[in-house]
This record gives sequence, structure tokens and C-alpha cells, in this order.
Amino acid sequence: MTSILETINGPEQLRALSVPQMELLAKEIRREIIEKVSVRGGHLAPNLGVVELTMALHYVFDTPNDQLVWDIGHQAYVHKLLTGRRDRFHTIRQFGGLSGYLRRDESDFDVFGASHASTSISAALGIAAARDLQGGTHKVVAIIGDGSLTGGMALEAINNAGSLKKNLIIVLNDNDKSISDNVGAISQYLGNVRRMQTSPSYQRLREMAKGSIERLPVVGDKAREAAGRAETSFKHFMMHSKSGAIFEELGFKFFGPFDGHDLETMVDVFENVKKVEGPIIVQMVTKKGKGWEVAEGDSTKWHGPGAYDYTTGIIKKNAGDPPSYTEVFANALVAIAEQDPKVVGITAAMEEGTGLKKLHQRFPERYFDVGIAEQHGVTFAGGLAVGGMIPVAAIYSTFMQRAIDQIIHDIAVQNLHVVFAMDRAGLVGEDGQTQHGVFDIAFSRMIPGMKVMAPKDEEELRHMLYTAIYLDGPVALRYPRGKALGVPMTNEFHKLEVGKAELLSPETLEAAEHQQTVLLAYGATVAQAELAAKELADEGIHVAVVNARWAKPLDEEMILRLAKATGRLVTIEDHVASAGFGSAVLELLEREGLNEVDVRVIGLPDKFVEHGALTILKELYGLSSAHIKDVVREQLSTTNRTLAK
Amino acid sequence: MTSILETINGPEQLRALSVPQMELLAKEIRREIIEKVSVRGGHLAPNLGVVELTMALHYVFDTPNDQLVWDIGHQAYVHKLLTGRRDRFHTIRQFGGLSGYLRRDESDFDVFGASHASTSISAALGIAAARDLQGGTHKVVAIIGDGSLTGGMALEAINNAGSLKKNLIIVLNDNDKSISDNVGAISQYLGNVRRMQTSPSYQRLREMAKGSIERLPVVGDKAREAAGRAETSFKHFMMHSKSGAIFEELGFKFFGPFDGHDLETMVDVFENVKKVEGPIIVQMVTKKGKGWEVAEGDSTKWHGPGAYDYTTGIIKKNAGDPPSYTEVFANALVAIAEQDPKVVGITAAMEEGTGLKKLHQRFPERYFDVGIAEQHGVTFAGGLAVGGMIPVAAIYSTFMQRAIDQIIHDIAVQNLHVVFAMDRAGLVGEDGQTQHGVFDIAFSRMIPGMKVMAPKDEEELRHMLYTAIYLDGPVALRYPRGKALGVPMTNEFHKLEVGKAELLSPETLEAAEHQQTVLLAYGATVAQAELAAKELADEGIHVAVVNARWAKPLDEEMILRLAKATGRLVTIEDHVASAGFGSAVLELLEREGLNEVDVRVIGLPDKFVEHGALTILKELYGLSSAHIKDVVREQLSTTNRTLAK
Repeated sequence: MTSILETINGPEQLRALSVPQMELLAKEIRREIIEKVSVRGGHLAPNLGVVELTMALHYVFDTPNDQLVWDIGHQAYVHKLLTGRRDRFHTIRQFGGLSGYLRRDESDFDVFGASHASTSISAALGIAAARDLQGGTHKVVAIIGDGSLTGGMALEAINNAGSLKKNLIIVLNDNDKSISDNVGAISQYLGNVRRMQTSPSYQRLREMAKGSIERLPVVGDKAREAAGRAETSFKHFMMHSKSGAIFEELGFKFFGPFDGHDLETMVDVFENVKKVEGPIIVQMVTKKGKGWEVAEGDSTKWHGPGAYDYTTGIIKKNAGDPPSYTEVFANALVAIAEQDPKVVGITAAMEEGTGLKKLHQRFPERYFDVGIAEQHGVTFAGGLAVGGMIPVAAIYSTFMQRAIDQIIHDIAVQNLHVVFAMDRAGLVGEDGQTQHGVFDIAFSRMIPGMKVMAPKDEEELRHMLYTAIYLDGPVALRYPRGKALGVPMTNEFHKLEVGKAELLSPETLEAAEHQQTVLLAYGATVAQAELAAKELADEGIHVAVVNARWAKPLDEEMILRLAKATGRLVTIEDHVASAGFGSAVLELLEREGLNEVDVRVIGLPDKFVEHGALTILKELYGLSSAHIKDVVREQLSTTNRTLAK
Repeated sequence: MTSILETINGPEQLRALSVPQMELLAKEIRREIIEKVSVRGGHLAPNLGVVELTMALHYVFDTPNDQLVWDIGHQAYVHKLLTGRRDRFHTIRQFGGLSGYLRRDESDFDVFGASHASTSISAALGIAAARDLQGGTHKVVAIIGDGSLTGGMALEAINNAGSLKKNLIIVLNDNDKSISDNVGAISQYLGNVRRMQTSPSYQRLREMAKGSIERLPVVGDKAREAAGRAETSFKHFMMHSKSGAIFEELGFKFFGPFDGHDLETMVDVFENVKKVEGPIIVQMVTKKGKGWEVAEGDSTKWHGPGAYDYTTGIIKKNAGDPPSYTEVFANALVAIAEQDPKVVGITAAMEEGTGLKKLHQRFPERYFDVGIAEQHGVTFAGGLAVGGMIPVAAIYSTFMQRAIDQIIHDIAVQNLHVVFAMDRAGLVGEDGQTQHGVFDIAFSRMIPGMKVMAPKDEEELRHMLYTAIYLDGPVALRYPRGKALGVPMTNEFHKLEVGKAELLSPETLEAAEHQQTVLLAYGATVAQAELAAKELADEGIHVAVVNARWAKPLDEEMILRLAKATGRLVTIEDHVASAGFGSAVLELLEREGLNEVDVRVIGLPDKFVEHGALTILKELYGLSSAHIKDVVREQLSTTNRTLAK
């Protein structure tokens, strides 16, 4: 039998369905998502939570003429299934396949891309302003989670939208969650609003809505018929709820809360809301993981799981795998915090992702989740440093982009001692374009007084964290996503010398001076450099391998010595080549009048790298041992140059 | 006769004064500020507005044990006068003198430096959290203007503080202003609160305060006596005002509004507030420019005037001066907007500073002031671009640091066409450390797809703006603070070719190839390069001068051709040398296998440059023609190298 989903090639087919058919379709969509995501993992719970919401939006609004602006976009799988991408849905997050987020170049229905939180209201407000300047009449709808409302830019946008008075609909997808539990006063406030839903006073408000209906546009008969709704659906009709007092004070009309899994209600609400003038907020209460009990039961675990068995709900794990860098970082931080009561941890709503959950469990009072608020989080860390603590701000590289001014203006200018632990540095794989952490070397090293380092493996990560915690001033530490190398681990910590690289092979600097070239690898690229060196040796090409450790300050002594001796360097980094580690080495040689050293910079090209498996991306973009070998061979084939030794 | 001010060497002398003496002191402080600032200019109206507020804070709180965290810091002149810096006050904003902002290394009373808005609550919350971890009992007070509350990070901090429940006092210095008039829903809301002050309902609330006093700590008798207050001061006693509903919903106790120029009231309020537990907001209504009628009358004009005559209140102007870059930009933008209805302008609360006031006056509907909200402003511009407009986001270089993630994630990843007009790029002079715009080349050029340019003079600025407006994708344009060069101006616009530099001397490339070296100058440094070249010619040293125009894409053809021919390049930029323009040139040469060209990079060192007159700073940090000449002479004295031509 043909499923309903198979008949949906776009919203027009959706709009022809009855409510019972839509409810069947919701089930099919959930099954499709649970099955397809199980193969390689992906964002699960956020998508299961918005099945009905997404359907109701596309049912009521004339997409893509009306414009849906999704915040973050990891909850857009349902949207993709309903907008002509059903056939390719099984390719999601794979190289060459659908993005796991939104992309303007993937579909006309993807109005504004995202993956970082809290951008949707700003974008939607701009789109609405452009519409009004050109006399357009289409609707603009931002869909934003309550977690994203803790992000300052969303609050900036609300402040702006509340006074600009454009026609703009903000759908608050209120699931009481960021990836982990929500924090902060706004979340608590919304929680109070949600609880009102079942209180007698709320029920009274609902009853009052019937009486106040004349204040609002008439319910659309067509929609009501199409949805097959009874007159009783009126009881859901929206009103200016006292529950939205904050937003009303800020210039919005507020409607809700409504059940974000009740299609009939939502269709009714949206049909009416779209006739209301001015900025509007509609609160829809949804449940992450809805419809699959294992995911409903632990939506944090099922936020973005790896591959799993969808018949059993068991996430696949390879028992023999090495730990992730995140785990090693988290364990090391707790171990250091055990010894030193001054050490505190800060996360921006990424308790699980950064591993800070371990610190939270062990030392709850020394753990701070500031919300999706990287700007505040960094300056808050600065305050902690002024107050005598040693703050470790654990923020993904890509999200640290949100707080560069705070690192400069609040931390580095004052030379405050804050450790920036930048997880997910380098290419991150399936999350793609917007999530790769490939700018942090550049934005860290441009800042005066920063110390910038990256470990070659998980054991070194432990010592680097320890080193960073006992240095002065701002210190940035980057490490990659995913499984570490599986090297032997110690229980000790020792301090690494600032600005000192590690010669890996050959054993002595004297011997290294006689190699044909030098592989100067930064962080996670060291392993590929070592592999390349071994394979080159088999070809009779002998190269030194240096673990650079520091991008700032560079190990000037070692780099200059080997550069002078060999006349050649190959720098390797998991970062854009523009303004990165290799660029820092070029600057050093320029300052020292050694421009004539033959340097080859291996780094990412000047483009946004797409999503796909890390192995594919690294191969494609030159971070493989094969490419390193090619560069070395090419370098050695160039005529030797005269060096001013 | 000795003034009271002359007896104030720190807060302890202030605390010994009676209220009438304090009122006299307030007058003396105003006179001191008005006179001293008149000599070289500075922040005037913000400081006149907080004279009594600052006195009351230092009177009540045990500073520096209790910690005052000022937002922005341009209103800290009174604070400086009261905390042992009276004797050096006349040096403010001068090289080697007091900073115009706060600096931790200037005084123990400067708890946390600032100059960008909206950071104080984050820093204060961190300090409070550190205090509580260590069992401290001192008070932490953030003083923040209502303008700064439009900044997302302040809202993030409020969200966090409202739930962390630390003892933290936030003083809202509510003057209904950013630099220009405030915008946004929060401002409107606070305006409503202010208006309640004189309404009957507010008076009723005030009367109720007497009755509800038992809910609050007892008024400090000592303070009351010291301040010589009568029992009637009770009528000012704070309470949970309904006027602070938003903040109460978010977990704060809210007190106010109070008259921020009434010392007696404020002392009373602060004495009591400091005994209240948990996060507190106190609203103090002040008037920018208070006490000097010319500044009160136009606080925007008097926010940060240049030198003026304090007897007449006339700001000094030299009639023959060339226009500022800002004025040229603003006029050009309006002229282009006249021709093209798609062009819109965005400012983040800098209508005057960016010159966008002209667009506002001419095309109010195509002008958007988003508040002190750079993150939102950039993504809002992205929405406008999606909607078919051509947005020009005019944001100072130093403030653009707040929106780097938005440029990457919302604009560049999607290749949206947004023009970033970065005023105040390079060293800015007297505002110092935190305000220099010396990172924008680095953070712009690391981003794939960005186009990055800078004009050599004000006429070129016009054509660059025109060029930027009719390019695709993200385009950044930087230009310096202050007076332009006074070159002849046209009324035409023409498009510059992307990635094409301009050879200034000698006339032809063929001739340039026979020069001894090449000065490759970027933006505002071109004039110094030309001067250096002329002077070098007098010494018999012949150099080519190139106006680079583009930092990305570089004019690879011209640079490579001249580099190959002369074997030498000198790059010059008003930006940190790390990761900047010169670094981009080094990368180009590396990619092309021309490492052996002798490149000298002239840029700012790896330190935060202090405040002082631009001429002094440029001389000191090597952006003078004298230094360029030194570098050239040094370069030419180096043995010529073998080039692989």
C-alpha cells in the first residue's frame, strides 16, 4: 500500500489532506525519520518534536511564497520531507547528500540557513522589512526554540522587532530544552507560563477567549472545513494571554500556550494569527522526542545520537573505541579541579557536548551553564578571573566565533587568566559548513597576549589543559571532534614549556637538521604527518616531523634552526590557510629575514567546506598523508635555493 | 579658598561630608569636568549626568572593597576624580595620561575595564560568583545605562543572573539615551516606567512604600544621620515596584525609579538596597549633560565633543578643515541611495558616529537603528539581502568584532550581499586600547568569499562604497577615524575592478619593475608611503608605490610581477601585523613559490596600543614615513638574493 508520505512532493499535497490523514502522515514521518537517522545518526529528538508543528505551518502558510525562517535548522528534517526532498532524505548528512541543516542552495523553501542558535528573528525581521519596502504582502514566520531565546542576539532582535512593528510571526517552539535542560530566568518564566496551562486561572482565560473573539479576525472557514474541525476547536482560539506579559510589554501580541502536537488546534491558531497585524509571538508547547518513547524518555541523549538500532532503541557503540577528546578533556578538568578549588568551568548550554557534565556532577557549585550565551559566558569568565578563580570556558570552536570581541575587549586587553577550551576544532564532518571550527587559529593569534595551542593526541591534551590552567593571561586550546587516537594515558599532569615545540623524528635536532624537509604539524594533523614521514622514508625521502604544539608563541628557536638548516618547511593545519598557523610561520620567517626558506602551507582552501564523513573531507581537502607526501615530493623537486645561513 | 574637591583624595573624604557639602562638591566636580574636557574634548554629557550617582555609590559602598563595575566607562570621569586621580585628571585621554575609560592597571577602584557596551552585568556576575565560592561578603555593583541594555550580552547576563540568585546590585542609569536617542522595545518599556513616576498610580505606590517597609531591611540610622536626612526621606524608600514587572518576572527585585540627581534619596536607597539579598535592579533616572544647560539641551552633540570654549559653549572648529571620512561616506551613501531604492542603511546605535543620520533624514524608511546590537544588526542585514535589498551595515571596526560569527555564519556561508562599512579602522587615538580598529583585516580575510578593501583617500572611499554596493556577496570596507586628506572630490561614482591595485608611482609597471623596492600600502597608510617615497627619491633611492586597495582578493598579478622584478616588497598597514594584510601577501608568495622575495611587513606590534594623539601613536608604532624609510634603507642594505624569475 502506498503511504501518504510517498504522495507528498510538496506542501500542495499536504494541504489537500484531512486532519485524520495528516495524523496518519505524522506517524509515517516519525517512522521515516527514526529509521533513516538510525543508519548514521543525526538530530533525532528535535525533529520528532516538531512533526505536527511543521505540518501545520506548511498547511496554513503559502510556502515558499510565505517564508519560514527556522532557527538552528537541526529540527528541519520534517520540513525537508514535506518540501520535495523526500527521495533524498536517506542521504542526509552524507557527503553529496542533503544537509543536516538548512541551505538556501538546497531548496527555495530554505529561506535562511542556520546551525548556530538564535539567528531566526533577526533574519526574519530583515526579510519582513525588505518586504514592506517593496510593498510585498507575504507572511514571514520565524520558528525559534525556547533554548535559543537565551541567546543575546535573539533578545536584541525581539527588542528591535517589538518597536519596528512589522508584520512578523514568531513561533516559539517551547520544549523546555536546549540540548540539555534549559537554564536562566527566561526559561523559568516560560516554565511558569506553561504550568498556567493547567491551572484554573488559565482555564478561565481559555473560556474568556470565546467572548473576546470579536477583537480578533474571524476564523478562516476554509481552513476549518479543510481540517474537518468541529466548532469545539474554538476553545483553543488564541487571545492576548496574560501569560505573555513580558512579550506584551515589549510590543508583541502574544498567543498561547497551545499544544504543539495538536494539528487541529495549530491549524486553527495559525489561520487566525496570520490575519493579525504587527509582531506576534505564538507559544507552541512541544516535546522533544515525541512519538518514540525511548527518545521522549531521554531527549538529551537522543538529541543527536550516532547510529542506533531503531527496533531496540540501542545506540551502537564499539566497545574497543578510544575515548573522545571531549571525554579526556572532561576527565582531566575534573581531576585538576579535585586538586585545585580555584578551577571552575563554564559552558554555553553545552553540558553534554563539552563534557562539562562531569564537572557539574562532581562540583556543582563550580560549574556554570550560562545559556546559549557565548558573549556573556566569556565576560562572566573574566569576572570569575578578576574574583580570583581560574575559569575554563569550554565552548566549541565554531561557537567561540560569537565571543571574539569579549575575548579581545574583556579578557585579553586586561590580560585576565581565562582558559578557552575549544572543542570541535578543525573539520567536524557531517554537520558541515557552519559547524567546522576552522577559523579559531586566525582569530586567536591576531589577539595580543593570547597563547594558542593544540595537542597532537589525547594524552597531550591533558597536559595542555593543565599547562593552560597554570599559565597567566588568556590561553586558547583547540582539539578535534570525535574519537581520540587511543594512545596510552597517564594519571599525571605536567606543564609544557610555553612556546616549545616537540621534535618527533628523528631523535635529535642535529639529525633533524640533515633531513630533506621538515613537517611542522599543528594539533590533530600530527598523526597524518607522522604517517606521511614513515611512508616517505620507504621511498628514501627523509623528513623531520615536529609537533608544533603552539601557534602563539611559536617555537621560534626550533623553527628557525630547522628552516635555516634544511631550507624547507611544510606546515600542516586543520584550519583555513588564510591567516592560520602556516601564515604565522611565514610571518616569523619574514621578521627574521628568512623569506627565502621554501615553505609550503597545507591548510583548508578559501571556501566553506561542505558536510560529509571526515575521512572523505580530509582526503578531498588535502589533510591526508597522501597529500602531505605529494607536497613534500613537489617541494623536493624544486631547485634548491641559496640560503643566508 | 580651598575647594571641597581639593580635599578629596579618595572615597573616605567623601564619606565625611554632609549632604549640603556633597551638593557643593557636585557643583565643583561639574565645573572641573566642563573646564578640563574643554581643552581637548572628551566624553562630557555622560559624565555630567552621573555626578550625584557616582558620589552616592562611593558614599554608601565601601569601595574598593565593595566593587563597582561600570559599563562602557566613558562616564567614569567622576569616579576618577573621587578615587585619587584628581591631580592627573587634566591628562585624561592624552598620551601617558589617564585613560578616558577604565583600566585595571590605572587604579584598584577600576574593577573591570570597558569601552564597548553591555559587558558590566556579565563581569559583575562573575565577580559575585567568585566571591561566593570563596566566602566573601563584599558587595558587587554593576552600573549600566539603559542604552547598554539593548545589547544582547547584557540581556544574556540578566537571564543568567536572574536564575543564579547571587547577591548582585544592578544600577540602571536610565537617561533614555544611547549616544543618540534610544531605540527598541525595552527603551519604550522603560519610558513607560519613567512616566509612571508622576502618575497618580505611581504616587500611590510611593505612599504604599511606607506601609511595606517591614518587608525590607531597616533603614540604616548611621547613613541617615550622616546624610542629615529628615524622616520625610522615607517617602523615597524603595519597594517592589510594579513598574519593574519585566525584571521581577525574570527573578530580580526591582526598586525605582528614583531621581538620580537627588543625593539624599540615592544614599538612602543604596543604604537599604545593599542589605537586600539576591539580584536587584535599581532604576536611577538621570539626565545626560545635567548641570550645564548647553549640554543638557543637546546631549547627543555633547556626548563626546572635541575641544570647546566652556565660557560660551561653542565647539571649536577649523573652517578650512577637510571633511571627515565619516561625512564623505555618509554623503556618498545618500547620493547612491538617491539613485537606487534598494540601498538601505543599518547602524547599531551610532546614528551620529557613522554618519547614517543623513540617510535617516533623507530616507527614514530605509534607515534602521537596531540598538547596541551588532550581532542582530548583521543578521538583520542578511534578512534584508534575502529580501532583495542592498544593505550597508555601518559599524565601527572595533564594534564589528561583536558580529564576526554573524558575518561568517549568516552572511558569508550563504554568500549574501551585505556591505560592511567599517569606520574607525586603524588606530583611533585618544580612545585607546579597546577602541582601535586593528583586527578587522584579519577577521575579514579569514572568511571565505569575503571581499576586503580600504581606500587611500576620501575620493576613493566614495568609489569603493559604490563598488561594494554593486558587487556580490559579503564586502568589507574599512576607513579611518577623523579628517580626510582634503583631496579634490568629484560628483561621479565609478566601479573599481575587483582585486586590482593602483600603481601610484612611477607611471608604468615597466618603470616600476626597475625600482629598488615596492611600497605596497593598504588604505590610510598610502599617504605615508607616498611621502616616504618622495623623500627617499631625494636620497637617490627609488621605490615604487602601490595603493593595494584590496586585501582580499589581492592583486596577485601586479604584486607577483613587481615582486619578481624587484625581489623586494614592503607592505604597510594600520592593523596588527599578525594575520593582517602583509601576512596575506606572504601567503600569496608562498602559494606561488616566491618565498625568496624579501618582504618587510610594517604593521602594529603584538600588543594593545595605548591611547594618545594619533600623530604620537603612529610615530611610536612605525606608521610614519620616517619608519617606512628606515625599513627601506634596511632592506636595501641586505644582500640581494637569487630569484627564480
